[in-house]
Amino acid sequence: MKIQCQKSDLLNGVNIVLKAVPVKSTMPILECLIIEATEQTIKLIANDMELGIETLVKGTIHETGSVALNAKIFSEIIRRLPENDVYITTDHNYMTEIVCEKAKFSISGRSGEEFPYLPNIEKDNPVVLSQFTLKEVIRQTVFSISDNESNKIMTGELFEIKNNELRVISLDGHRISIRKILMKDSYEDRKVIIPGKTLNEISKILSGEVSSLVNIFFTDKHALFEFDDTVVLTRLIEGEYYRIDQMLSSDYETKVTINKKELQNCIERASLLIRETDKKPIILDISNNNFELKINTAIGSMNEEIDITLEGKDIIIGFNPKFLLDALRVIDDETVDIYLINAKAPCFIRNQDQSYIYLILPVNINVTA
Amino acid sequence: MKIQCQKSDLLNGVNIVLKAVPVKSTMPILECLIIEATEQTIKLIANDMELGIETLVKGTIHETGSVALNAKIFSEIIRRLPENDVYITTDHNYMTEIVCEKAKFSISGRSGEEFPYLPNIEKDNPVVLSQFTLKEVIRQTVFSISDNESNKIMTGELFEIKNNELRVISLDGHRISIRKILMKDSYEDRKVIIPGKTLNEISKILSGEVSSLVNIFFTDKHALFEFDDTVVLTRLIEGEYYRIDQMLSSDYETKVTINKKELQNCIERASLLIRETDKKPIILDISNNNFELKINTAIGSMNEEIDITLEGKDIIIGFNPKFLLDALRVIDDETVDIYLINAKAPCFIRNQDQSYIYLILPVNINVTA
Repeated sequence: MKIQCQKSDLLNGVNIVLKAVPVKSTMPILECLIIEATEQTIKLIANDMELGIETLVKGTIHETGSVALNAKIFSEIIRRLPENDVYITTDHNYMTEIVCEKAKFSISGRSGEEFPYLPNIEKDNPVVLSQFTLKEVIRQTVFSISDNESNKIMTGELFEIKNNELRVISLDGHRISIRKILMKDSYEDRKVIIPGKTLNEISKILSGEVSSLVNIFFTDKHALFEFDDTVVLTRLIEGEYYRIDQMLSSDYETKVTINKKELQNCIERASLLIRETDKKPIILDISNNNFELKINTAIGSMNEEIDITLEGKDIIIGFNPKFLLDALRVIDDETVDIYLINAKAPCFIRNQDQSYIYLILPVNINVTA
Repeated sequence: MKIQCQKSDLLNGVNIVLKAVPVKSTMPILECLIIEATEQTIKLIANDMELGIETLVKGTIHETGSVALNAKIFSEIIRRLPENDVYITTDHNYMTEIVCEKAKFSISGRSGEEFPYLPNIEKDNPVVLSQFTLKEVIRQTVFSISDNESNKIMTGELFEIKNNELRVISLDGHRISIRKILMKDSYEDRKVIIPGKTLNEISKILSGEVSSLVNIFFTDKHALFEFDDTVVLTRLIEGEYYRIDQMLSSDYETKVTINKKELQNCIERASLLIRETDKKPIILDISNNNFELKINTAIGSMNEEIDITLEGKDIIIGFNPKFLLDALRVIDDETVDIYLINAKAPCFIRNQDQSYIYLILPVNINVTA
């Protein structure tokens, strides 16, 4: 194999496939990336068995062929080369020479025989989203997956497609995050659970541009994301997702309308008094049209009043401040509505058309606190 | 005590004294900072027994007094307050209230009785430098102190004043860094060893402005740095520093003049092939007016030629690439001169007027490599 690429193009491609290289694996071949040069294209491939990525790199193919190279070493070398043409040449023993200007590296590669290439996926009826929308919806929900591998389903997100609506749901037993997206076209009904970890990696590769599209294809076992010159394949999580609709009551006894940024800043300040070993809740005390946040820990106490518009009953309720913060941080609205029922029932942060719903369970508090 | 300060002024002061707060100490009082409000000034103080810092904060004193507060908690609270006036009030039990807009924190403080306040230092005959010069000279030398506490003297830097010249020296057994600074005035001869760790902290506080001055006062046990509204006191290291002048030969057999940035980039690339467990030297092969850098490790090999101007004999010599890089990174010249004697003798990177000298010991290499 002998190819020639611009350093920046090559580095860009390497950075994309690196997302599918495991830091450490019992199968050394997985720590490699494949360079595959055919008559037409130069392709980089990596696969950690959960997530597989292929991306095309512009360049000149002087001789077709392929080689597997340790991804970490190869990427570090490319990163440090001067901004110029890079020549990669492999001999019959997979000894690989990387030359750029006067710098000449030799590293040993290996054949890609044992490498788990990506399976062929039939590409029809794609679900189409903009890169921006997909990247955003991942950011706005992925924080509330569970990282406890013993409950596999909670480590993924439900992508539920019905007519022209996509609903993305994540939950971890303490809270549920839901985002709804209207799509241009109608699609057949479909429900898949995508691993949160792979969604995180995909969102890092997405450019986030409004004008670039992502085609998503589904099979029984996989979802395939196709955008720019890149293909990302992820395994799906098998099993049935939780039925959450029965938890989404619209009833409420108290509705608080509040400036989002003010509330977020206040909870961030209050969180300073929390230490790992002393997980105290933050208390929302709503009475006489007054909204007061309070916290009391071994380090000290804090309270702060915030202006609100109140509808309904007074209430005192406690929350894990992190859960409130996680939700507030991904809401872009200037004001948010918080719906409460009683001190033992979940609160809902949602907007009018329910394009987002964040459900958070309260923490038991001593009401006299 | 009751004081009122702008949040930004207070935060600035807190960030300065934080440099003298130990992360963890067996004496809890050292993890505190002192707020001391007299009729005239508000002063923040911290001291880890090696390094002590006092700094003044602008503000209004409503009631004089002082309090010791956990520095980490206090700094985190101040950092998160809105940009507005902060009121700090302490009662007779040292319960401290911090109020800013509608946010109200209460944390418990303690009396400063046990706190090791900074000793009084007689301030006469200061050595005067610009903040820029002091900050630069620390950066340009402090990397080659030793972090091995068993040889205390190597963990410090020699500040040697003679007439109107300051010489700063650090060494770690493998290399020596020397910077010379011409000063405006003449001073009496003096040699002190300042702990490298405290120099690092001081350099973080220095603004680095050319127009602001630092007054440095010395006693037998301490050096005191006075600048802006801040006083930094550091203990000196006792003992006699190494006699290095006999090691600074001006003889050479080979002189290489080379583009600094090119050499640095090349060594950085070569370093990619080095792993913790496999510390191979970088080899400089100078022959027939050709300068070639080579490295050969378990990961692979690399070589690169760089244009030079050569004076003298051919030579093959090996170095720890990190030591070359450390020196090159703090030299601002476009080209550097490297002086070599033989493969077992140190190399010198120095400029014409010897305002900098970096001596680096070579590594034994198999010349047939």
